[in-house]
Amino acid sequence: MRYSSQLIEDAVNGFSKLPGIGRKSALRMVLHLVQNDRKAAAEIINSLSNMEENLKTCRRCFNFSDHEVCEICNNPVRDHSVICVVESIRDVIAIEETDQFHGTYHVLGGVISPIDGIGPADLNCEELFKRVEEEDTKELIMGLSPTIEGETTIFYISKKLKHLDVKLSVLARGISFGGELEYADGLTLGRSILSRTSYVHLGE
Amino acid sequence: MRYSSQLIEDAVNGFSKLPGIGRKSALRMVLHLVQNDRKAAAEIINSLSNMEENLKTCRRCFNFSDHEVCEICNNPVRDHSVICVVESIRDVIAIEETDQFHGTYHVLGGVISPIDGIGPADLNCEELFKRVEEEDTKELIMGLSPTIEGETTIFYISKKLKHLDVKLSVLARGISFGGELEYADGLTLGRSILSRTSYVHLGE
Repeated sequence: MRYSSQLIEDAVNGFSKLPGIGRKSALRMVLHLVQNDRKAAAEIINSLSNMEENLKTCRRCFNFSDHEVCEICNNPVRDHSVICVVESIRDVIAIEETDQFHGTYHVLGGVISPIDGIGPADLNCEELFKRVEEEDTKELIMGLSPTIEGETTIFYISKKLKHLDVKLSVLARGISFGGELEYADGLTLGRSILSRTSYVHLGE
Repeated sequence: MRYSSQLIEDAVNGFSKLPGIGRKSALRMVLHLVQNDRKAAAEIINSLSNMEENLKTCRRCFNFSDHEVCEICNNPVRDHSVICVVESIRDVIAIEETDQFHGTYHVLGGVISPIDGIGPADLNCEELFKRVEEEDTKELIMGLSPTIEGETTIFYISKKLKHLDVKLSVLARGISFGGELEYADGLTLGRSILSRTSYVHLGE
């Protein structure tokens, strides 16, 4: 035992399992909770217990949800004919934070990666195809990372949906806002020239 | 609501109250606990609840303790005639980790700081004086930070214990191991010349 208290030792062990947290940071957190912020400790206990008991997966889009169907799928204001296909729930949150997308999502739970032994059967692909057929989907936005695995997944899905009248699109690729041109990688820079867009004058 | 789930929202709010953790890191932790490590979530819930219910303060040295008297005070192998006076429990842990001290501790719970309105009455000073008188203490090591507040506290304690036959010592001050001489501050460097120690040849 390192801290002369088994109780603190246990709490430090628990917190040091969090991503990016070592034993020193875990100890700092635990001491903070005990010494300065007992209310936050209670809040963490309650919210985690609640989450453990009640958090569900939306049966339509596989996003996390408090109910059978998530807030986004249940929202009548959103455009249900557009589905953004993403790898993980974290991507849903990232896109939601931009406030630029008002359709629905479909969380695949990963991307096709033969090296890691992940095939289409391990992902929520079949559920996506079923949704597209049943729901009168007009557009599928492939919000996947521009990696080999992401491209493979996009290719697989596009092939499977070829016979349906669904528009397939991918996120625009190009130079990041605020990025320096000279430091952009050659592939991105080359592609961004090929798929240049016409300039819109802001004054008009 | 930002995450389409109130349960996740609550958990993120709880975790973002931890020191050094913003909402992005908190979300990363919460998603990790839900998606990859449900066992760690249970561990955090249980250890925090246990700590909340059972963690005590040692009535002798004011360290955290699982019992009325802490492991260190209860250890018969340790030298109970030497007390290391420290500001906080974190200092106890830091010194314990060096494995170089085998006496006992006394946690003051702060240092005298008139600017912040902290006087001797706000600290565990009286309890220290009582301990020294009752316990046949031989040496008091002042393990306080070399700041104005720390020095003031050392001065106050030394004055109060003047009439007793107790040796008072402070931690050695000087250049840190691995530190570059040219970057050491003048005060530390000057003091380290004045209080130089004789060189011990390792071969002998």
